Amino acid sequence: MKILWVFAHPEPRSLNGSLRDDGTQALRDLGHEVRESDLYAMDWRPVVDSGDFHRETVDRLLVGAEQEHAYSAAKLTDDITAEQEKIAWADALVFQFPLWWFGPPAILKGWFDRVLVQGFAFGLQDHAGRTLRYGDGGLAGKRAMVITTVGARESGFGPRGIHGQLDEVLFPLLHGTFWYTGMDALPPYVVYGADRLDAAGYRTRAAELRERLRTLPVTEPLPYRHEHRGDYDDALVLHPEIEPNLTGVAAHRSRTPER
Amino acid sequence: MKILWVFAHPEPRSLNGSLRDDGTQALRDLGHEVRESDLYAMDWRPVVDSGDFHRETVDRLLVGAEQEHAYSAAKLTDDITAEQEKIAWADALVFQFPLWWFGPPAILKGWFDRVLVQGFAFGLQDHAGRTLRYGDGGLAGKRAMVITTVGARESGFGPRGIHGQLDEVLFPLLHGTFWYTGMDALPPYVVYGADRLDAAGYRTRAAELRERLRTLPVTEPLPYRHEHRGDYDDALVLHPEIEPNLTGVAAHRSRTPER
Repeated sequence: MKILWVFAHPEPRSLNGSLRDDGTQALRDLGHEVRESDLYAMDWRPVVDSGDFHRETVDRLLVGAEQEHAYSAAKLTDDITAEQEKIAWADALVFQFPLWWFGPPAILKGWFDRVLVQGFAFGLQDHAGRTLRYGDGGLAGKRAMVITTVGARESGFGPRGIHGQLDEVLFPLLHGTFWYTGMDALPPYVVYGADRLDAAGYRTRAAELRERLRTLPVTEPLPYRHEHRGDYDDALVLHPEIEPNLTGVAAHRSRTPER
Repeated sequence: MKILWVFAHPEPRSLNGSLRDDGTQALRDLGHEVRESDLYAMDWRPVVDSGDFHRETVDRLLVGAEQEHAYSAAKLTDDITAEQEKIAWADALVFQFPLWWFGPPAILKGWFDRVLVQGFAFGLQDHAGRTLRYGDGGLAGKRAMVITTVGARESGFGPRGIHGQLDEVLFPLLHGTFWYTGMDALPPYVVYGADRLDAAGYRTRAAELRERLRTLPVTEPLPYRHEHRGDYDDALVLHPEIEPNLTGVAAHRSRTPER
């Protein structure tokens, strides 16, 4: 496979840096092609502003419309276009980051904000004029996997842990970004207790990660529901007969995988 | 009250800009003191890196430890210190942003990443040596409110809407950031269908916002559970008798408010 590894940690001599080195090497040893976006090393600029566009006039900035227009007119800045080219090339994307405030560091959040523009990642329509989202869309057919490190213990991110069940805490990324743009969201690989990991613990985690990377092409994705396969009504609300007792983010996983 | 308004939109001549102007004016008319952090206007740098610290040596960067050390030694950069001073001053914080990829824009995510460091916002201990989090902590006693704009219709963010129930989508911010640092998280004020709002629609939304700001000092917060009031065990897992049938982020709201 062709795999894009997006890395968002400021220190290469860190747990994250070691996992990145071992992980990308494991993928290459398996015969995959790997490209990397090391956002700190690239000095990636994460802030959406009028500098993202080759604009003729400097009038009022309508962000979404300007992004879509600039994409279709090939007027996005080169740094954005280069990332879009890598995404288009890849069969699978790996996003590795330390969990800061229960989400990606700003440098990675701004990669999504600037790169996944309308027309490229979403906002496409099918022949019937329906907007393609949630299981369909600009990035359909690709797989996406999170690798993250957390200081807390695993129990706190379990089904009844105080920090919230991890895949629900990451819902904006797994469902709202990966699945929204059509990508299959794989279960995240998480290193808990990251601040207290010793050398033996590292070897265990690195071996787990290699195994997750070995099965990357075939791992069953999280069973999110497609927008256009009958689960939702025209107001984008789950039909009453589907999981009638569930509300909230938990309702958007099907208990029995669709595929 | 003393209110800090943090604003994260690149275009002052936008729906968000108008709501900011009307909202801050409404608070001043009510007799509150208002300070603003207009992140785009400030050219706020959102990326945590070694430049955040007045460091004697440039060795391996351990982000959390370095932030805590620099805070206690007064060696954080001036831009971070200035924001911490505003937070310490404020009784309530308002965070206004367009919802991008189901969360705050990178410029605001990086405000949390850089400003809410250990020792200031969290990591404090009580007399018994317990770490103060979730309802207690460095920012306890303050209130925090989100104002956000969304292109989608409201139905999609309802209890069974495809985008996920809004307060659960914002769980990393409302529970994992506000409540984690001790702040009471107020129900967000959301403008749906933001791309299709006409002048009459704007007047309605602005009036709603003014009413929400009028009641800011007394609005009932989201009923998240305190870490240290008996709901969680030592592994930070909800006791079995508490909402025995609930898992995931929904389990961390008490149906009957604690206060």
